[in-house]
This record gives sequence, C-alpha cells and structure tokens, in this order.
Amino acid sequence: MPQGSTPVPEHRAPEHPSPRPRTARELGIMQGFPPPPEKRPTLSDWDLPPFNRWSFQNVRSLIPSVEVRRGEDCWDLPGEPLDLSEIRFLDHAGAERTVARWLAQSYTDGLLVWHRGRLAGELYFNDMTPASAHLAQSVSKSVVGATAGILVGRGLLDPDAPFVDYVPEMTACGYADATLRHALDMVSGVRFTEDYNAPDSDMTRIDVASGWRPVPNGGPRPTIRDVLLSLPKERPHGERFAYRSIETDAVAWAMERAAGRPLAELVSELLWQPMGAERDAYFTVDGAGTALADGGFNATLRDYARFGRLMLEGGRRDGRQIVPAEWIEATRFGGDPAQFGPPYDLVSPKGAYRHQWWVHDAGRGDIMARGVFGQMIYVDPEGDFMAVKLSSWPDFLIPAFSIDTLAALAAIRRELG
Amino acid sequence: MPQGSTPVPEHRAPEHPSPRPRTARELGIMQGFPPPPEKRPTLSDWDLPPFNRWSFQNVRSLIPSVEVRRGEDCWDLPGEPLDLSEIRFLDHAGAERTVARWLAQSYTDGLLVWHRGRLAGELYFNDMTPASAHLAQSVSKSVVGATAGILVGRGLLDPDAPFVDYVPEMTACGYADATLRHALDMVSGVRFTEDYNAPDSDMTRIDVASGWRPVPNGGPRPTIRDVLLSLPKERPHGERFAYRSIETDAVAWAMERAAGRPLAELVSELLWQPMGAERDAYFTVDGAGTALADGGFNATLRDYARFGRLMLEGGRRDGRQIVPAEWIEATRFGGDPAQFGPPYDLVSPKGAYRHQWWVHDAGRGDIMARGVFGQMIYVDPEGDFMAVKLSSWPDFLIPAFSIDTLAALAAIRRELG
Repeated sequence: MPQGSTPVPEHRAPEHPSPRPRTARELGIMQGFPPPPEKRPTLSDWDLPPFNRWSFQNVRSLIPSVEVRRGEDCWDLPGEPLDLSEIRFLDHAGAERTVARWLAQSYTDGLLVWHRGRLAGELYFNDMTPASAHLAQSVSKSVVGATAGILVGRGLLDPDAPFVDYVPEMTACGYADATLRHALDMVSGVRFTEDYNAPDSDMTRIDVASGWRPVPNGGPRPTIRDVLLSLPKERPHGERFAYRSIETDAVAWAMERAAGRPLAELVSELLWQPMGAERDAYFTVDGAGTALADGGFNATLRDYARFGRLMLEGGRRDGRQIVPAEWIEATRFGGDPAQFGPPYDLVSPKGAYRHQWWVHDAGRGDIMARGVFGQMIYVDPEGDFMAVKLSSWPDFLIPAFSIDTLAALAAIRRELG
Repeated sequence: MPQGSTPVPEHRAPEHPSPRPRTARELGIMQGFPPPPEKRPTLSDWDLPPFNRWSFQNVRSLIPSVEVRRGEDCWDLPGEPLDLSEIRFLDHAGAERTVARWLAQSYTDGLLVWHRGRLAGELYFNDMTPASAHLAQSVSKSVVGATAGILVGRGLLDPDAPFVDYVPEMTACGYADATLRHALDMVSGVRFTEDYNAPDSDMTRIDVASGWRPVPNGGPRPTIRDVLLSLPKERPHGERFAYRSIETDAVAWAMERAAGRPLAELVSELLWQPMGAERDAYFTVDGAGTALADGGFNATLRDYARFGRLMLEGGRRDGRQIVPAEWIEATRFGGDPAQFGPPYDLVSPKGAYRHQWWVHDAGRGDIMARGVFGQMIYVDPEGDFMAVKLSSWPDFLIPAFSIDTLAALAAIRRELG
C-alpha cells in the first residue's frame, strides 16, 4: 500500500465489508463467449472494482506486455501447508478475527506463508491458481530495486553517480542534479503528484503513458519517458522521503542504459532465472516498449514467494549469492526513520524507506514490498518468516486493511513460533 | 502461405532478393532505451516490412494476449542437429541453390527438421532463440483444427451439426444454415474477402476488430464476433474450397460454446499440455477477450515442432493418443482435390484442404500448416519427415518463396534418406 505525498484519500470501502466479497466468476465478469459488454473491463475501468477482481490475474489480456523469462531449473519450496484458518488476531478496530475471516473479507487472491525454511501456508481464492500471474502493482518497485542492487554489486551501476551520467536527456528535467540514490530511496526533490484519482495528476499522466488508461480526447499517446522528462524539481534533493512512483522509472532508465539491456531481460537474467522462478513473469509496456517499472510486473504467488525467500535468506539461493548481502543489509537497516513522516508512519510508526522497499520497523529490519489494492511481500529475517498476500481490494489504499494484514501476519508468525 | 479467394496479389519482393536480408537489430528496430520513434512499430505497420523482422517475435508487446499454458512435463526431442547447409536444390527459377543460401535469403527466423524420430536440424536467425515465441499467422488455424478434432473425439463437438446448435446468434448471418464441417474444410458459402491490402476488405475489418490495426477515424472498436455476425452468404455451402480466415473463427466460437471454456484453455489442456510443450504459448485477444483463432497464435520453434511431430506420429505422444488417429487420417486423405482449384493449385497441383490443414499431395497425404509471411509446418508421414519454418518475409504472399520452401524441404528429406 504505497501512500502518496498527497493526503491519503478517504477510502471508499465499507467499514464492515460484506462477509465474503464475490469472485469475478460470481460477479459475471468476463464470463460467457463472448461476455456481455457491461461485464468486460476496458482501459477506463479495468483496475477499479468490480473489474479488478478479474483483471489483476489477466493484465496482459488488456495491455501489451513483455516476458520476464524463467530459467531451466526451479527453486523448490519444501513443506506442507498448515491449517492457519483458526489463528486469531485483533483487527484495526480492536475486534477479534480469525485468519480465515480476514482472508475472505480482504479480497484475497492468494496467500503464501514461509517459516523457518518451510512453506507453512499456500491458499488461493477468486479462481487464482499456482499458474496465475497476478499484478504486483508497486511490489514491482522492490523487484526493480533488488535488480538494481545486483547491477551495483557487479560494478555496472553506481548508486552515487548522477542520473545524467547514464541518461544525458535528464539535464532538462528535475533529475538534472539528482543521483540514483535519491531515486532509489525516494528522496529526490522531483515533483510527482502520486494521486490515483485526480485526472490531471502526474500519476494519471503515467497511467495514460503506460497504456493503462485511454488517452484523453484521443490524440497520440505519450511514453513513460516523455512524462518523466517533463517533471520539474520542487525542492532540494535528499530533504525527505516522499513516495513517488516515477523514481522507480528513473532508476530503471539508468539501469537499461548502464547494462545496455531492457529491464525485462535484466530482471530475468539477474534475478528471475538464477532465483529459480517456476513460470515466466511479465511487465506491461508502453508504446516505446518501455516496461512500467513502478507497477507493471506480474508473476505467480509462488514466484513472489521465491523472491521474498531470497530476500529473507540474505540474497542467497542454496548458498549461491544472487542479491548482494550488503545491499539487503543496507535495505533493512540503512533507511532513515527521521525522513519518514506522515502519512507514511500510520502503518509503520517506526518505519523507513530504502532501496525501493518499505522498512516496517527500522530497528527490527523487517521489510515490505507493497502495492495498491492489497499487494504485499513481508520479509522478516529476525522471525525467519516471510509472507506474500495478493489481493483485489475495492480501492487503491485502505489503511484499515493494511493494518489488519500486518496484525494477521504477526499473529501467524507468533502461532508458528 | 494462405492464398485468398481474390487473385494472388503481385508480390512486392525483388525477384533476386539481397544476399542476406538484414536482421531487426541491424535495421535498428526497437534498439536503444528508448528506441527512436521512427524505429518503433505501431499498430499501423507492425506486421509489414521492415518492422515484422522484430514484431513477429514480440507480438504481445504490441497487442493484448492470453496464455496457452504448458504443462508440467516436456516432450523430449532427441537427436543432434546435422549440417544441412550444403544440401542443394533447384529453386523456383530453376537455379541451383544451397539450403544455407535459401535460409538466408528467405528471411528465416527459425528452421527445425525432424526425420525418423530424431531432430535433424535446428537453426535460429534474426536473434530468435529457443525461448522466443514467434507469430504463427495462419498456422494458428491448424492448431485450432487439431484441437477441434480432440473435442470431436471426446464427443463434445459434432462436426456435422449446424453452427446454430452451438451459436444461436448465427441465425442472423451467412452461417445460419452451415455446418461446422463446412467451416472446418473452408467450403461454406459465407462471404469473406481475404484481401490483406484493401482497407475495406473483410480481412481488414477482422484486423481492426482483433486489435491488429488502429480503428479508422477512431471510434469504438468492434469485436471479432461482431464482424463475423455481419457476414452474408454469397453462394451455397459445400460448393468449393475458398480460403477464408473467418471460417476458423466460426469453428472456434462453436468450440468455446460446446466446451464452456475459452479457446486458449482448450488448446492448453487438450493439446499443448498433453503434447509436452516446453514453454507457454499465447493468442492475441480482442476487446471481448476472444482469441484470434485464425492467426493470433504464438509459440516457440521447438513447440511447433512438437505439434508437427504429434501430427506426424498419428496423434500419439509416446504411445498415448492425443489427437484422434482417425481425425488425422481424415485430414490427410479426406480432402477433395476436385474442390481445390486456382489459385490454390499453384503451390500444390495435387492439393486439397481439410480440417484446417493444407494437403500438399492428396495421394501422398503430406499436410501443411501455413501462414502469411512465411510460416510453415510440413508433415510427411510417408517420408517420416517433418519440418517447421518460421519467417518474416517482406510480403504476405510470395509464391516463389513457397515453392522454394517445398523444394528445399524435399531436397533435405531426400538427402536424409
């Protein structure tokens, strides 16, 4: 659940959601041959309720995409799922709830729990299967951030270099005097209004450029990088953390220029293949073939879990280092809580942000990849615990749902010992 | 190389093509981050030269798509590629040519040769790799036809039933009194102008509906099935073979209604998974999520080869029947050469058309899946020989290239003994 630099919008979900949100199938979305017109998502509404119940597992049937290929071998996830359903926790309103009820009420598509080297839970809802690729939303940022760390570890990318060393075009925009680190930690001073609902926000401009929304009044569609180059600087770089999606797209551009390879190939060859992904993943792409680094990634529940496990285990897969250990250490403990103020501290009072990850508790070093509409990878090395939750919430941001997720995961972790 | 019911258009390729057509990379197509605007394919030009050198391996980065999932195991293709390059044959002009020169001059992306249960050749060009999914064009039809055969074998689809038994909406169009078999063998009397270049042809209307072309003058995009339902009958059903892409889309619609599953799932579960495909394949989809059955399929060279091998081996994979043997027998020998006249007899003088396959010689029973711009799966059980050629020709139809392909494959088959 990324939170904008603008005030958190009032959420439109009911305080007491219906006992069990309906599935896409029950809602009739994309059922029938062909489905009735009113049951087909379009570029105007695909990511909003009720259509996102279907779309988040079918993004590439709406938007052009590029593969992030798996490799030849697959990282085993040993263990048998346990029954977690009756574990109880106190929700945001102080009421006791079971995990089963929480999962049903929070529009869950998939949940995977990993504890002490074993798979402890793996659950699918809303017709999701182990083969379904689910939209990551801003969990994509953490995938890109880890890939940047691998490039840094190989000496191909210098986080302290100015952007213009890699992307000279940036001299004409707000990134002219920013370093990669400013964007990696989202502390640059570049203006980007992260407002998901305003038709004239920078976020909406990126939605249009990335092919996620229709072009207003027709006309040619700009590209992601056209929008990026139009953004001014509005305050000094390094002053404070402000969650702005465009920072990830800026980092990705530098990564491509540094490595001479498109982002999808970099993620595949540096991360998804060596990590042993089970299935191909994909990014959505704009009209120039540019992957939407800040939110366009899609993968299976089990492959998100492999990624989370890799972060949990210090970047190593069975002894082989894939993400540099020092990069992960810095991700966990290098963030600056002093730069992390309202509204971000609502969900993480002791939080920070580093390397495209949310740090939930800067002392504990538990980190989160988070995406709107309920996507999360929670990685807690201290508890030897990791969980992935994929959802199709009825709104971008529902703070109560985020608080419940963290409380439920903490209860599961406690119960597992 | 499907040929239209309209006269074969004069081909625009030079009689003596340049010694080696340039690769997408050499042409600068989609090179750089971002690529320059004039080097980016758009919906107006992606399938035409020079852009198709890149696009045919990257269709889903331009058009929405749906997966055709592989299964858990993969059908081995034993054998070591032989050096076929110096094999000689007489080309369409009566000149001697080597296989190496033919491959280089005919815009080849991939070639796989299979003989007597062994892989005899596997070659990639133009940056294609074993992991690249390549557009099938009308080879898609033969994939759909084989899947229809499986449904028939299971008693889920009756080829002699009228279309309206499955799709009552068809009572208002040219298919009102046609049977599935009429469309399977492309002998219905439904009007469909298979003209790839005329902006007002039915083919162009399907290109627009399927998302392959921009909508003229903006406006809402119709669906594939909207176009299908608008087509009148122009002669009695069963009179003669006329190659019309829409017949495949009609069959696919009946298949979905009969099975209650979308085409991509049917191909996956009935064919691609049991056949042991190595990688996911995909179809492009229209705004209603309908797969473009007549030409929107994409898969790897090796998976097309597995499909060709399956047809070669009577529909069995290592003893397990996947496509009914009698369906394949009828495909090979059930076509009626008397219904197969000009212009189709140019490439196959003793030819026929059956079950969405081209029969090259109705006596020999060698069959071909063919697609515009140089796609072909050639299956010759009598010679225990099968080959796949994937290409990005500079025009839809180049009869000289088709004749060369068959001559080269015959020479390779002779040489292998």
